[in-house]
Amino acid sequence: MPDIIDTIFRRRSIRRYQDKPVERDKLELLLRAAMAAPSACNSQPWEFVVVTEAEVLDRLRDKLRFARYNAPAAIVVLGNLQVADNSAAKRYWIQDCCAAIENILLAATGLDLGSVWIGVHPLPSFERPVRRILSIPEEVTPLGIVYVGYPDEDKAPQTKYDDRRVYWEHYEPRRRRAKRKNAKHNTEE
Amino acid sequence: MPDIIDTIFRRRSIRRYQDKPVERDKLELLLRAAMAAPSACNSQPWEFVVVTEAEVLDRLRDKLRFARYNAPAAIVVLGNLQVADNSAAKRYWIQDCCAAIENILLAATGLDLGSVWIGVHPLPSFERPVRRILSIPEEVTPLGIVYVGYPDEDKAPQTKYDDRRVYWEHYEPRRRRAKRKNAKHNTEE
Repeated sequence: MPDIIDTIFRRRSIRRYQDKPVERDKLELLLRAAMAAPSACNSQPWEFVVVTEAEVLDRLRDKLRFARYNAPAAIVVLGNLQVADNSAAKRYWIQDCCAAIENILLAATGLDLGSVWIGVHPLPSFERPVRRILSIPEEVTPLGIVYVGYPDEDKAPQTKYDDRRVYWEHYEPRRRRAKRKNAKHNTEE
Repeated sequence: MPDIIDTIFRRRSIRRYQDKPVERDKLELLLRAAMAAPSACNSQPWEFVVVTEAEVLDRLRDKLRFARYNAPAAIVVLGNLQVADNSAAKRYWIQDCCAAIENILLAATGLDLGSVWIGVHPLPSFERPVRRILSIPEEVTPLGIVYVGYPDEDKAPQTKYDDRRVYWEHYEPRRRRAKRKNAKHNTEE
């Protein structure tokens, strides 16, 4: 299997971390990977806050009930139309930033780091505390947080490939409906 | 440099393709990579239409002025809340589908294929023809198209890493403004 497929399958959401900091050069390599992502008309609508101070991480964990994992580092990915190179970012900044986030997750996997993606935007109750704790101004949007650290749990590689999600040449609404009807009778699927 | 970083830097938007079809097993491997992406609460809000028929590709190219490249295959990535496993998809389906798209782009790079991401949603003038040509019903949203094929152009690996986009521990609105002011006087940046 090509290395890249292996890495993509080995990327799993890691929620338990060793008590060991992530080296600064590895964090910078993750940021280099992030900013190698494609963006609409090359708008690059992203900024990043890297958090490694335990006290700040504790404050984030305290406020975000879906982010209570003991990672020693967090990369907060921000959308900012003011630093974007063109107006395509207005429509596509979320998509561009998500490509950057996926690059971080895969790069971390390749560096033997664990990671997990915490969605923030568009939930105001998640955005507010992140803004407050990290001094993020109104015109900048915290899209998501990537926790990073050395994993303290093992997860097997996997894909959730499902051929019912795949159409060839054109969509088939009837095929999909049939599948869903059958699914009701097979809760083990 | 770790393989994954190399692959991430080698992923470039390819817009000229050889006149050579993509093998079916490679297309399926791209879909396996796509569905290995993380999704909010594991909602998997995605579906895919793989297009390889020249006549259908021609119709897409004819209607989408940002998609006039001669790729022999296209993977159209769709968001569908009805097939998603839970309600988190309502907020995060775009982000989840973008992680899947980035996986396709990187997997293609690792398989020596070129690729380019064509944004579709949220532009109605792009969504409408894609829906019509591929028979996509109203409740399903074409988010983007990934063109795939053997490249007929060489592009050097790169990252657009820019340390002005990186903050450590907390955001610094003043630092950013200073940078932008300087940037006005240095158009070569």
